[in-house]
Amino acid sequence: MFFLPPWIVIDSSIHNWLLEDIGRGDRTTIGLKGSFPQKGEAQWVVKSSGIIAGLPIAARVFYLLNPEVKFLPLVAEGEICQAGQIIAQLEGPSDVLLMGERVALNLTMRLSGIATLTRQYTEKIADLKTQLADTRKTTPGLRILEKYATQVGGAVNHRMGLDDAVMIKDNHIKAAGSIGEAISQIKKTIPYPLTIEVETTTIHEVQGALSHGADIIMLDNMSIDKIRPAVQLIRATNNKVKIEASGNITLDNLRKVAQTGVDYISTSAPITRSTWLDLSMRFI
Amino acid sequence: MFFLPPWIVIDSSIHNWLLEDIGRGDRTTIGLKGSFPQKGEAQWVVKSSGIIAGLPIAARVFYLLNPEVKFLPLVAEGEICQAGQIIAQLEGPSDVLLMGERVALNLTMRLSGIATLTRQYTEKIADLKTQLADTRKTTPGLRILEKYATQVGGAVNHRMGLDDAVMIKDNHIKAAGSIGEAISQIKKTIPYPLTIEVETTTIHEVQGALSHGADIIMLDNMSIDKIRPAVQLIRATNNKVKIEASGNITLDNLRKVAQTGVDYISTSAPITRSTWLDLSMRFI
Amino acid sequence: MFFLPPWIVIDSSIHNWLLEDIGRGDRTTIGLKGSFPQKGEAQWVVKSSGIIAGLPIAARVFYLLNPEVKFLPLVAEGEICQAGQIIAQLEGPSDVLLMGERVALNLTMRLSGIATLTRQYTEKIADLKTQLADTRKTTPGLRILEKYATQVGGAVNHRMGLDDAVMIKDNHIKAAGSIGEAISQIKKTIPYPLTIEVETTTIHEVQGALSHGADIIMLDNMSIDKIRPAVQLIRATNNKVKIEASGNITLDNLRKVAQTGVDYISTSAPITRSTWLDLSMRFI
Amino acid sequence: MFFLPPWIVIDSSIHNWLLEDIGRGDRTTIGLKGSFPQKGEAQWVVKSSGIIAGLPIAARVFYLLNPEVKFLPLVAEGEICQAGQIIAQLEGPSDVLLMGERVALNLTMRLSGIATLTRQYTEKIADLKTQLADTRKTTPGLRILEKYATQVGGAVNHRMGLDDAVMIKDNHIKAAGSIGEAISQIKKTIPYPLTIEVETTTIHEVQGALSHGADIIMLDNMSIDKIRPAVQLIRATNNKVKIEASGNITLDNLRKVAQTGVDYISTSAPITRSTWLDLSMRFI
Amino acid sequence: MFFLPPWIVIDSSIHNWLLEDIGRGDRTTIGLKGSFPQKGEAQWVVKSSGIIAGLPIAARVFYLLNPEVKFLPLVAEGEICQAGQIIAQLEGPSDVLLMGERVALNLTMRLSGIATLTRQYTEKIADLKTQLADTRKTTPGLRILEKYATQVGGAVNHRMGLDDAVMIKDNHIKAAGSIGEAISQIKKTIPYPLTIEVETTTIHEVQGALSHGADIIMLDNMSIDKIRPAVQLIRATNNKVKIEASGNITLDNLRKVAQTGVDYISTSAPITRSTWLDLSMRFI
Amino acid sequence: MFFLPPWIVIDSSIHNWLLEDIGRGDRTTIGLKGSFPQKGEAQWVVKSSGIIAGLPIAARVFYLLNPEVKFLPLVAEGEICQAGQIIAQLEGPSDVLLMGERVALNLTMRLSGIATLTRQYTEKIADLKTQLADTRKTTPGLRILEKYATQVGGAVNHRMGLDDAVMIKDNHIKAAGSIGEAISQIKKTIPYPLTIEVETTTIHEVQGALSHGADIIMLDNMSIDKIRPAVQLIRATNNKVKIEASGNITLDNLRKVAQTGVDYISTSAPITRSTWLDLSMRFI
Repeated sequence: MFFLPPWIVIDSSIHNWLLEDIGRGDRTTIGLKGSFPQKGEAQWVVKSSGIIAGLPIAARVFYLLNPEVKFLPLVAEGEICQAGQIIAQLEGPSDVLLMGERVALNLTMRLSGIATLTRQYTEKIADLKTQLADTRKTTPGLRILEKYATQVGGAVNHRMGLDDAVMIKDNHIKAAGSIGEAISQIKKTIPYPLTIEVETTTIHEVQGALSHGADIIMLDNMSIDKIRPAVQLIRATNNKVKIEASGNITLDNLRKVAQTGVDYISTSAPITRSTWLDLSMRFI
Repeated sequence: MFFLPPWIVIDSSIHNWLLEDIGRGDRTTIGLKGSFPQKGEAQWVVKSSGIIAGLPIAARVFYLLNPEVKFLPLVAEGEICQAGQIIAQLEGPSDVLLMGERVALNLTMRLSGIATLTRQYTEKIADLKTQLADTRKTTPGLRILEKYATQVGGAVNHRMGLDDAVMIKDNHIKAAGSIGEAISQIKKTIPYPLTIEVETTTIHEVQGALSHGADIIMLDNMSIDKIRPAVQLIRATNNKVKIEASGNITLDNLRKVAQTGVDYISTSAPITRSTWLDLSMRFI
Repeated sequence: MFFLPPWIVIDSSIHNWLLEDIGRGDRTTIGLKGSFPQKGEAQWVVKSSGIIAGLPIAARVFYLLNPEVKFLPLVAEGEICQAGQIIAQLEGPSDVLLMGERVALNLTMRLSGIATLTRQYTEKIADLKTQLADTRKTTPGLRILEKYATQVGGAVNHRMGLDDAVMIKDNHIKAAGSIGEAISQIKKTIPYPLTIEVETTTIHEVQGALSHGADIIMLDNMSIDKIRPAVQLIRATNNKVKIEASGNITLDNLRKVAQTGVDYISTSAPITRSTWLDLSMRFI
Repeated sequence: MFFLPPWIVIDSSIHNWLLEDIGRGDRTTIGLKGSFPQKGEAQWVVKSSGIIAGLPIAARVFYLLNPEVKFLPLVAEGEICQAGQIIAQLEGPSDVLLMGERVALNLTMRLSGIATLTRQYTEKIADLKTQLADTRKTTPGLRILEKYATQVGGAVNHRMGLDDAVMIKDNHIKAAGSIGEAISQIKKTIPYPLTIEVETTTIHEVQGALSHGADIIMLDNMSIDKIRPAVQLIRATNNKVKIEASGNITLDNLRKVAQTGVDYISTSAPITRSTWLDLSMRFI
Repeated sequence: MFFLPPWIVIDSSIHNWLLEDIGRGDRTTIGLKGSFPQKGEAQWVVKSSGIIAGLPIAARVFYLLNPEVKFLPLVAEGEICQAGQIIAQLEGPSDVLLMGERVALNLTMRLSGIATLTRQYTEKIADLKTQLADTRKTTPGLRILEKYATQVGGAVNHRMGLDDAVMIKDNHIKAAGSIGEAISQIKKTIPYPLTIEVETTTIHEVQGALSHGADIIMLDNMSIDKIRPAVQLIRATNNKVKIEASGNITLDNLRKVAQTGVDYISTSAPITRSTWLDLSMRFI
Repeated sequence: MFFLPPWIVIDSSIHNWLLEDIGRGDRTTIGLKGSFPQKGEAQWVVKSSGIIAGLPIAARVFYLLNPEVKFLPLVAEGEICQAGQIIAQLEGPSDVLLMGERVALNLTMRLSGIATLTRQYTEKIADLKTQLADTRKTTPGLRILEKYATQVGGAVNHRMGLDDAVMIKDNHIKAAGSIGEAISQIKKTIPYPLTIEVETTTIHEVQGALSHGADIIMLDNMSIDKIRPAVQLIRATNNKVKIEASGNITLDNLRKVAQTGVDYISTSAPITRSTWLDLSMRFI
């Protein structure tokens, strides 16, 4: 339902994250290794209500540390949980549970925090056709997972990096001389299936983008009054061109922007303005 | 003034972060490579007031992409900046500036956000001897840098991982049978310079930790009324034992806890509850 | 003019290729290190006519081995060269020239071989609007560079991997139940700028793809007689939909297929059926 | 029967090749993950006759992606297959079969192409004692596997890199002053079991190489008339010295060169002049 | 009982060590692969008496090469063994046993040699409270394992690297101006749980270190006559301060130094002056 | 004069060794960074007489940490030095000198220790034609460098790994059925320039090895009385076959074995029985 790549894509990151925390070894836990019972059981508990995202990844964290750990999610990704709710059951060697705890929780708390804030945005426009989109403002090293979390929160992903779509901004246009020149130059070197998005700030630029074959037109920092005619113009010209509004999107103005009929509203807020959902692990 | 390890420690992370964003190549910028002027100049601007942290790392991001880029910070790490203030000047090949922009900004926005919130905490107790400490709740992959940011914000770091200090929690004590047993077992395998911290929740446990030679005693989730006698007891017993208060620390109660005379108050809030400081890059 | 990503994307591959050949060290050359003159000069010579591709990468091979080597291309990428023509001049420590020779030549010979065969295809349709496209049939580890070579030969790249565009084939349609169902499911998880290509073999499938919003329609293994009406149908419906013909493309039938008015003709032949262009290095 | 190193030697390459194709994830297949039947079955079919090489490696590709896939080769490595013949049976999660298909096929098509052309050469001299040998002209990153493929085609490998044997060419001799000087210098630093091959172009050089203890003498670009007396001279002097002919070897002159009695004829043709054997995967 | 980190910390080193020996493949063993019996059995034999250390790591070496190998230690880590004693039983594919033999033995011979010499030191002071400590003089790449071996030999580890404790030496003091200044500066940037050790050579420096809060005081190269009063002074001042003697420690003077009542005596000898314990593998 | 591969082969190991020691950063030195003078100077001093090996590698350690460091060797590799002699001069940022000190010294102490003991062996036979050879008993991760050190000490290297020569031992012979069968099987899969060494313990086995074309015959653990006729037999049969004696070689019996006329005597002693040469760094 949500996009997670095969583990081969993510495992080396998880591996590095475990080493970051473990360093040369968990001095406390390994020092007591002989004392721990063969098997431990633990639970993950939510400490304030929110949307859960990241449990399959948390499970993988433990798996990479030691495949004997069983991590059983009790809620689905994207489910809303209440403070006190148990969201996962763990079983495995006690020392492994303790060693992997922090990394697995940190990831899930961060991703759930993103999903929770994203949901607040997407709920505002749930009945409209406009979709919320994220941006490339993501924590370095976590892009795939943070964009997974915005999906879980109800958003759709924008491009994943500088290579899976073209985004022509003012500096590119200035360098090339014009929108038309920029598009025609770029078309020479891109894989032909890639789409070309052009950032525009005036109706004049919208026309330029349209006439030179832009696939997506971003209306950047435009007022509602400017967005409306732009949408009209684009729809009238070509119904396959997608329209994205961007810039200063807040929970307050989101719905109004959506009502102009744009296809997408992009904002980094779910990622840059979210805090972590509080989770903890307790042994039972 | 703040602790940044030599680049050899961080470079491979920066390298991965650049590849995460660039993927198989910046389709927009490389497609226009021929059109860009040889050299471009740009500025970094703060869009809302806050504490800046991360400029040396941002400079390194560009350097690893192409050593020709000159990144000149205009403010010191830890300086408070106002909306609109220019904090760095960049010069270099335009395509490189565009290619590195997002990664460098993302890092600095995240770190500055942390430093900004940390400062709000540390200012509350600036005149007291108690210091704010961070925790291991950090974004996977960013621990060294996020802990650098809390330093910039005025905090002192807690341990960096599971290997540079011992932290005995309830599960460890339960496994070993008692605080004394846990400490004596762990002492057999740790490098002898490592300190041993024990998490306590009652005055009884504080006594146990003290009598078995704990170096640091954490008073976990204790009320002010319980913290005071604990501090008194520890001070009376051994003046080299450090005292840390932890649990449910907020901007509101921080000062009161500090006034009990504990040495450190640890909280994950500067990292888990901070949002990004808004920065942008503009070409000139 | 042609798309090469920044070196940060390719360097680790080049590094591995050098180690593959050098192993634990060049026993012959290092054994004679004391005897070599400080500086050596060499030339690269083409031994049969063809299109040159890869000289900037060859230069990088030597640079990574030792930055003192100067590698001066004497011809532009994509230039046609005759047997006996000198295409590059090298200067640097003799032992480094000898140590890097094989890897640099192997790469350039392979890429030039691809560019040479690609050019034979693209010349056949140079006066038409149809463009030649490559496929994902590339030598493992060399995709970016081999696709660079097809560009040098005059082709346009198809997608670079499984992640920068969607390609719905018969197995996907069978799994989803119908073209429409497949498209609608996939749209839920892809970054919204990604395009969706659908592979079709009948006019009926073309209609299905069209009506469900495919961005690119591939006419797979269709005869000229079937391609023509398909093109007509698509053009009549939506002029932004791109048309790709594929399957059993040869130097003989290429032009005929192009004359049907399709936008792209994709074939793996320039990569899977090309042989290496013969080059050699001689010391002077 | 043929030399494949343990997987530990090859796995990281296969891993990289999978990531090269999958990128951030297979957008098409993962998007449909919910629709796929639990298990899929597929076959690999040869589309034109040739020698199969690489099936064990193809099996490993799928295994690394997901160990649940069963890849059952139906023909032995080195077996000649006819167009239409089924050479392998696959069973496993459909999405994994689709995700690994391209990398596994690309490898096998390339290796089988090499084996097929190699066999054309080796058949010409199958009844003679002379053996065909490959060279270091291999695709960067694929040397071990491409040399595996020439073995499958009936050839014997020449050295694997610059470190497992010494090869003294004209530039080395020029640097050292003479063949004798070159050999004596090199002997000082090489592991003593390594053999020393000397490239010669005249009978005079052959004598030099012989008298200074060369283990292998390469007759480079000599005519049949010059090869014969060289062989005679070497055999008369020391029957442990191996003789290799090289340069301008074609399917036409191969047998004649072999009939001179040289031990090895080395040529890069099976690798640099082969095209891919066409294979495809079909679901059943 | 002894500290070994989880395999995730060590596996990549073991992986590299196997590749270092195997290179492009074990030419002898793989060449005979067809001839080997399915399963082989072997034993590890000690050839001169000593303390065994490293068997769990040897087992991991084989496991990483091929998980089918069963490696059964017959003695505990730290056990003293006599010449001729069988210390481990192996079962698995013969070619894998042969391929992993050298790396596994080399490791165990090195570690057992260290443990054996360490034990000679620790036995001298076994009845005293003073403990033997190692140093950072370890073979590059083997620190964790060599420090594991000193533990097995009865020593306690000193710090693992430059980051898990502070060690202030003369150059640091000179740079800062005084011990007090050095300590106060360093305290600003270290994680607060880290201990601070100060190297002293005179009773005056001991006083300085004491009065500025050093956690550990090293008495460097002091005579027994100077150590005694230093110990007295420190004990009288603060019983939590640890005392380490260092410099020119030999088997002869070790006990005398210990009798001064220092807590630790550090010496690199067990690592820098030990030779390998002779072990061999024989097939049965 | 001695074989060191290009840095590209060794750099990643040096990089890992630096990280092993530095961990998350040198807490002592970085904490005092502001206090250090811009530039520091230091010397390396030998503390007991021995043969120096490893200074170029020590220089590289500092270079990788920071290219500003100048490391000037004052003695040549292989030179004998006396206690107190200064062997290298260093200049560079003080904090970098301190941070790299331990790794650079550890390496050089280890390598010099090997060179020193090797020299004791090689001097015993310096006037004879027999050469001392090392073995594959090397510290994991250090093989290239430790074998470099035996060269510096006057030995010649044996094979570097399992892939650059064939070594047929009793288990291989047992598996194949006979020496002849083993050789003929192995010849099918090895690169043809590789030499084949056979381990023999009786004159009968020597004959077998000789008659089946072994390139090197190892006389394993034979008494002088058995070695003599074996040498005679081999010489009489083929003067290109190399003879190696091995097993229980000591400083005492080395010369006697050499006087039998064998070409090589292999022993692991210089590596497994050497201790470190004591070096230290002092600031000036």
